[in-house]
Amino acid sequence: MTPMSGPITFNAQHSPMGAFMSFTCGNPGTRGGIGLQIGSPGDQEVFIGVIDGDRYADAPLKCLPFYIGAASTAMEAFTAETAGPSEANVRPDAVTFSPDEIKRFYSWATDSWVADDMAFTVYTPFGAIPDPAKASDKEMRDALRPAVVARLVVDNTKGTKPKTGIFALNHARTGPRMIVDDLGGKTRVGFAFRREAGVAAEVVDITGAGKADHPEAFGFMRWSATDGIREKYNPVHLLGSCPGIGFEVPAGKKYCLVLAIGSYLEAPVTTGISGKYLYTRYFTDLTDVLKSTLDSAGKMADEAEALSAKLEATALSADQKFLISHATHSYYGSTQLLDVDKQPFWVVNEGEYCMMNTLDLSVDHVFWELDRNPWVVKNLLDNFVAHYSYTDEVKVYKDEFKGAHGFDHDPSQPPPPPDAAQLARPYDKKPGGISFCHDMGAHNNFAPKGRSSYELANLTSTFSYMTVEQLCNWTLTAGCYVAKTRDTAWLKKSKKIVAEILESMINRGGEVGFAQYDSTKTAGGQEITTYDSLDHSLAQTRNNVYMAVKSWATYRTLALLFRDLGDKKSAEKSLELAKKVAGFVADQAVDGVLPAIFEKDNPGYASRILPATEGCAYPLYYVKTGYAGETLEQVFASPSEKRMYDALKEHTRKLLTDPQGRNTFADGGIKLSSTSNNSWMSKISIFMHVTRKVFGLDKDPAVAEVFKKADAAHTKWQTVGSAYWACCDQIVSGEGKASRYYPRIITSALWID
Amino acid sequence: MTPMSGPITFNAQHSPMGAFMSFTCGNPGTRGGIGLQIGSPGDQEVFIGVIDGDRYADAPLKCLPFYIGAASTAMEAFTAETAGPSEANVRPDAVTFSPDEIKRFYSWATDSWVADDMAFTVYTPFGAIPDPAKASDKEMRDALRPAVVARLVVDNTKGTKPKTGIFALNHARTGPRMIVDDLGGKTRVGFAFRREAGVAAEVVDITGAGKADHPEAFGFMRWSATDGIREKYNPVHLLGSCPGIGFEVPAGKKYCLVLAIGSYLEAPVTTGISGKYLYTRYFTDLTDVLKSTLDSAGKMADEAEALSAKLEATALSADQKFLISHATHSYYGSTQLLDVDKQPFWVVNEGEYCMMNTLDLSVDHVFWELDRNPWVVKNLLDNFVAHYSYTDEVKVYKDEFKGAHGFDHDPSQPPPPPDAAQLARPYDKKPGGISFCHDMGAHNNFAPKGRSSYELANLTSTFSYMTVEQLCNWTLTAGCYVAKTRDTAWLKKSKKIVAEILESMINRGGEVGFAQYDSTKTAGGQEITTYDSLDHSLAQTRNNVYMAVKSWATYRTLALLFRDLGDKKSAEKSLELAKKVAGFVADQAVDGVLPAIFEKDNPGYASRILPATEGCAYPLYYVKTGYAGETLEQVFASPSEKRMYDALKEHTRKLLTDPQGRNTFADGGIKLSSTSNNSWMSKISIFMHVTRKVFGLDKDPAVAEVFKKADAAHTKWQTVGSAYWACCDQIVSGEGKASRYYPRIITSALWID
Repeated sequence: MTPMSGPITFNAQHSPMGAFMSFTCGNPGTRGGIGLQIGSPGDQEVFIGVIDGDRYADAPLKCLPFYIGAASTAMEAFTAETAGPSEANVRPDAVTFSPDEIKRFYSWATDSWVADDMAFTVYTPFGAIPDPAKASDKEMRDALRPAVVARLVVDNTKGTKPKTGIFALNHARTGPRMIVDDLGGKTRVGFAFRREAGVAAEVVDITGAGKADHPEAFGFMRWSATDGIREKYNPVHLLGSCPGIGFEVPAGKKYCLVLAIGSYLEAPVTTGISGKYLYTRYFTDLTDVLKSTLDSAGKMADEAEALSAKLEATALSADQKFLISHATHSYYGSTQLLDVDKQPFWVVNEGEYCMMNTLDLSVDHVFWELDRNPWVVKNLLDNFVAHYSYTDEVKVYKDEFKGAHGFDHDPSQPPPPPDAAQLARPYDKKPGGISFCHDMGAHNNFAPKGRSSYELANLTSTFSYMTVEQLCNWTLTAGCYVAKTRDTAWLKKSKKIVAEILESMINRGGEVGFAQYDSTKTAGGQEITTYDSLDHSLAQTRNNVYMAVKSWATYRTLALLFRDLGDKKSAEKSLELAKKVAGFVADQAVDGVLPAIFEKDNPGYASRILPATEGCAYPLYYVKTGYAGETLEQVFASPSEKRMYDALKEHTRKLLTDPQGRNTFADGGIKLSSTSNNSWMSKISIFMHVTRKVFGLDKDPAVAEVFKKADAAHTKWQTVGSAYWACCDQIVSGEGKASRYYPRIITSALWID
Repeated sequence: MTPMSGPITFNAQHSPMGAFMSFTCGNPGTRGGIGLQIGSPGDQEVFIGVIDGDRYADAPLKCLPFYIGAASTAMEAFTAETAGPSEANVRPDAVTFSPDEIKRFYSWATDSWVADDMAFTVYTPFGAIPDPAKASDKEMRDALRPAVVARLVVDNTKGTKPKTGIFALNHARTGPRMIVDDLGGKTRVGFAFRREAGVAAEVVDITGAGKADHPEAFGFMRWSATDGIREKYNPVHLLGSCPGIGFEVPAGKKYCLVLAIGSYLEAPVTTGISGKYLYTRYFTDLTDVLKSTLDSAGKMADEAEALSAKLEATALSADQKFLISHATHSYYGSTQLLDVDKQPFWVVNEGEYCMMNTLDLSVDHVFWELDRNPWVVKNLLDNFVAHYSYTDEVKVYKDEFKGAHGFDHDPSQPPPPPDAAQLARPYDKKPGGISFCHDMGAHNNFAPKGRSSYELANLTSTFSYMTVEQLCNWTLTAGCYVAKTRDTAWLKKSKKIVAEILESMINRGGEVGFAQYDSTKTAGGQEITTYDSLDHSLAQTRNNVYMAVKSWATYRTLALLFRDLGDKKSAEKSLELAKKVAGFVADQAVDGVLPAIFEKDNPGYASRILPATEGCAYPLYYVKTGYAGETLEQVFASPSEKRMYDALKEHTRKLLTDPQGRNTFADGGIKLSSTSNNSWMSKISIFMHVTRKVFGLDKDPAVAEVFKKADAAHTKWQTVGSAYWACCDQIVSGEGKASRYYPRIITSALWID
C-alpha cells in the first residue's frame, strides 16, 4: 500500500459492526478516542507514542498529535525540552512528531500511522452479520464483537538502548479505572471507563520469525500520560484521569502491542421501543469483549488487511479508494443492532443527527447491506411497516401558489418559520394512502408509532414531511431486497403493502402519475425531498425531476414485485405508469436540459440538477442482479422510456460539460444544483455511478476529466474541509457544514462494481 | 419564614435520599438541572418563568436567572424587547427578573424563589430510610423514590388577561424526549432525558378553598424555551433540545404546576463490586418514579415544610439555620444506596471527588445517620471490615528526620513529588495490625479489596496513607453506632475486630500510646490525617495533638465496647491507655496552648490548631446517648483526663480570643490552623459544637461574639465564595477552592442538639 499523498490530518471513525461505537483519531489537537452512541468524536485525548529510552528516561514522549495542544507542540518544543536541565522532577511533556515525520496509510479496513520506528494501525474488519435466527453463538460473537483491534509496533532492532511505547486515553469525564479481572493471561493489562468501554492489550515479540512470546506490558493511570508512564512509586492512582498501557522494547527487539478497544452497554438503551444491544446476548461483560478481542486479534487484523488489499487491488483511483474507505469507516460507526423483545432490530443512526433509520438514507445504504446481510434490510422494511407507516389524504390546491418559494437552510439550525402564503392556500382533500415516516426516532429515543422525529406540519422546507419521497424509498428498498434475495416468501407476506403502495402512488400522482399533491400531514405546508436543505431546485416534491425519475423507478419496481406476486393486472398498470411518467419527464427538456421543477413560475424551473438521474440506480440494480430479467437497454426500450433515457443522458452530459461550469465548484467538485452551494457527497456518488453504468458517459473524455478532478476535490472536502468530523456528507463550498460523521457516503462503494 | 437577607444567588442541590441525584439551581448564568452520579451541577439550562399573556403572547418570558446568559439579560433587555416591533416572527427571548425583584426562602428541606406573581419551590423531604430487610415495599418506595417535588405557582387573581407559566430544561447533551406513557392522568405531561431522568407535572387550581381540579398543562420541545412555548404549529419537535411544560392561568385564577423531577438508572452502575440502585427493586422505570412522585407530591411537600418549620423553630441564628440547611441539601446529593448481591450497600460519595465512603467523612456523618437510619452505619462498618480493611507493619525510624516537612497543597491538583529526605530514612519493621482504607473507590468504581482510591505510597502529604486516622475513625463510628442502638448482637459478631483494633492501636502508639509510627503501607512516606491539604500542623499523623485526642477518644470507645463484650481486662487496658494519652497531651501545653505537633524541631510545633479538641465529640455522644453510663464530668474525672480537659479548654479559649487573631480570618471566619489559610467548614462545625457542649466556652461573651461573627462569615463563604459549587467544605481565605458540592458539612446539624 502506498501512503496518502495529500493531507493526512483528518479524523477517521474506527468501528465494529452494530455497536454504535467509534474509536476516533486523526485530527490534531482535538479530543477523540472511544465514543458511544454519539454522532461526534469521543471526549478523550489519545496518546500514542514512544520514549527513546526506558519508561523513566529523561526523554520526551513523542506522540501522534491526537491530544489537546498537540497542534502547537511540535519539534521545537521537543528540542527545547531536551536542552533543559535533567533533574528528577523535570518531566518533559508529550511532544508530537512533526507532520513531515508521519506517513498515513488509509484504506478500507485499516488505518496506519508510521513515524520513525513506530507504527500504529487500527483494524476494522467488516463483513456479513449472520442472521441471529440461523447462526451459531460463535458466529454471532465474531460478527458483533463490540471492539476494534489496534497494533502499536516499536522497532528497536537497530537501537542500542531500550525504547518505550505507550497507548493512553486521557478522559474528560470522571470514571476511568484499571481492569483487575483476568483478561486471559498474566501478560495482559487493561483499563476501562466505568462499565461501558475499555482497552486491553498484550505485547508480542515480533523480532524474529520464531515463536512469539509475550513480554511484559504495564498499566498506569495518573493525571497525564507522561506522568503515568514515568511515575516510579505509584504508576496507578485510582483517582487519575489518564489510564494507559506501556511496554519497554530492549535494544535489538521489535515488539508489537496488540490492543483491543471495545465497549459494552448492558442495559436497555432505547426508549419508545425498548432495545438493548444484540451483542449482550453473546458477551457477558466488557472484560469478555476485550478478552475475546485479544484472542481473535490476529484473525481480525488479517481480515481487515484482506479487505484493504481487496480495495487496493481494484482499478479505482487513489481518490476513489480513499472516499470509499472513509465512507466505510463512518458507516459502521453509525450502525446499531438492537435486541427488541428477543428479536433483532437494525438501526443505522444518521451521523451527527443520530436519527434512527432515516429512510431516505436506508434506500442509499441498501446496496451495501444487500451485499453482506440482506436480512437487516428485511428487518428494516418490516419495522417500517409495523411501526413507522401511516395513511394520509392529499391536498388538492384550489389555486396557484402566490408566495415565495423555499430557500437554502442550514440543517443544524432551527427550522425557518412557515411560509405565510403557502399556509393560506385553500385545498380540497382527496384519498392519499400508505406512506412511511422519515425516520424511527433520534438519539436512542424511538418516536411514537407512525411518527418520525424529523417531520413537522406547516413547513415548506427543512423538517417538512417527505411522504412521496419515503413511499418511493421503501418500495425501492423492497425491490432491491427481493432482487438480491428472491425472497418470495417475504414478498407474499408483504402483498397487501405492495398493493397499497401502488394505490398510494396513483392517488398522489394525479394526471401525470407522480407527486402532484402534498400530504395532509403537511397541513398548511408542502412536502420536501431528502435534499431538504438544498434550495428550491430539490426541496419541493411536487413536479420535481428528481422525484419524477424516482417515481418512474418505483413503478418499475412495483411492476417486478407484482410480477412475482402473480398480479399481472397491477404489474401492467405499474408499467403503464412508469411509461407515462417517463414520457412526461422527457417532454420537459428544453434545449437538452431538464428543469429541476416542472413549473414555469417556480424559481426551480431555472435550476439544473444532476440528481435528476438518481432513480435510474434501482432498475440498474434489478438488471445487474438478474431480477429484471432483461438488459438495461430493454428496460429503456419503450418509446417514452427511451426518450427519457436520452433526455437524462443529454441533460447529464450538458450539465457536466457546461462551459459556464454551473454544476461544478471552483475546486472541481460536483455541484448537485446549479443554484445552490450545498452538495451531498453521498448523492454525488450515486450520480457518478449512474452516469457511468447507466449512461456510459465516462467514456466521454471530457466527462472523465470532470470526474477525475471532482474526485480530487471531493477527497479534499473530507481531509481538509471536514477534518474533525470524519466522513461528512453535506458540503458547502468545500467545507463540511452539516451531515457530519455520516454513514450515507457508503454509496461510493457502488463504484467498486 | 423570612426571606434571606444576604446574597441569594448561589446554587443549592435538591436531592432525594440514596439516588446520587441532584436538581441544582440558584447560581445565575450557569447550567444546572438534573445531574446524576456527578460531583457538580448538571448540564441543563433551567427555565422557570412567566409570560404576561397567553403562551403566544408578544411579551417576554421572565425567568429566574438559571440559564446561560441570564447574568447579562436583566431588565434592560426586557425593556428593549417590549419596545421593539411586535411582528409575528419577533420572538422575544427569555429575560430574567432583576435581582431586587426576587426573594429567596431557603431552609432545611425547602427552597423558594418568589418574584412578582410567581413562586417556585423545591421540596426535598428527608428522614429515615427503613432497613430493607424489615420494611414494606411501600415504605421503601416512599423512602427511596429517586425524585424531588417542585411547585411553580402563578397568581393571576388580580390579572385581567391570562398569564403563562413554564418550566423547561435546555439540554447540552442529545437525547431529551417527551413522555408518551401514561403518567396517571390525562392532565399530566412530562419529558425525559433518554431512560435516565425526567420531569412530569400537572396543574392544580388553587384559587379558592374548594376542590382542586386539574386544568390543562402542555408539553413542548424545541431548541429554546421561548421557541417551544410560543410555537403554534409544532410545539413538540422530537429533535429539540429544550423540553418543557407550560400552563395558562386565566385572569382571576391562581394555578400551581406540581412537578416531579426524578431519575432512574436500571443497570448496574458500579464496577469492582457490581451494584445497582436499590430503588430499582421498588420502582419499575422512570415513568413509575415520576407518576408516583406526582401521586405523593402533596405528602412530600408537607413533610418538607414540616422539616423546614422544625429548623426554623429552633433557637439557632439565621446564619446557623442557613448553614445547616445548605449542608443538608448537599449531603443527600452525595448519597447512593446500592443493591449488591441482593443486599443493600450504603455509599456517601465525597462531593466533587466522588470517592466512595471516605471513612474520614463517614465518622463525621455518623451523628446525622444515627438519628435517622442506624442500619446504614452498620452496613458501612461491615463493608469496611469485609472489603476495605488491611493489616500492615509499622516503621520504626532509626534516625531523626532531616528533611523538609509537609506543605500546603491544593487537593484538586496532582500530588507533590515524594520528599527525598523522608524516602531515605532507614527504619526497622515492627508488627502493626488492622486498619481501614481511606475510601472504597471513586466515581462508581469500587477499588480492589483492601485498597482505597486515594492512598499512595512514598508520599508525605496529600494522597498518603491515613492508617491511624482511619483506625480511629472506624472505631469511633462503631462506638457511636453501639451507643445509639445498643446493638450488642452486632458488637459480639465484631468482637474479633475490636480486639484487633486495640492491639493495632497499641502497636502504633509506642511508649506514649498513640500514633508514633508510620505504616509500612507508606513505604518511604509518612502517614497523614484527614486534614490532608492543610499544612504541617495537621498533615502529619505522628505526635499530632488532633490525633492524640482522637486516639484518647478511641481508647475511651474501646473501653466501652470491651465493657459490653464482657472483656474487663481489655476494657481496663483501654482506659489505662486513654489516661496515659490524656496525660501526655496535657503535658505538652506551653503557656496554655498546645502545639499542633509535639516535636520541637517540627514547624508544626509553632502552629496553633483548633481541631485539637475534635476527639471530644465522641465521648460527648456516649454521654448524651447514655451509653457512657456517666456524665461528661465523670468521663474527665481521672487526674490526667481532667488535666487534658483543662488544657484543651484553655487552649481553645486562648486561640479564640487571641489578641493577634491568628485563628480567625479577616472576615471573622474560623481559621483551623494559625499557619494555614485552608479551613474546613465541616470541621469548624464540629469544633464549635465541642466548644459549646464539652467546654461550655460559648458562655464566655468574647467567644460567643467570635462565633457569631464567624457564622456570618461562614454563610458568606457559601453564598458568595462558593456560589456555583453549592455547599463547599474547603475554604481558602473565604473562597470555596476544594471539597466542593460536598456532603461533610452535615456536621453543622450537631448544632441543633
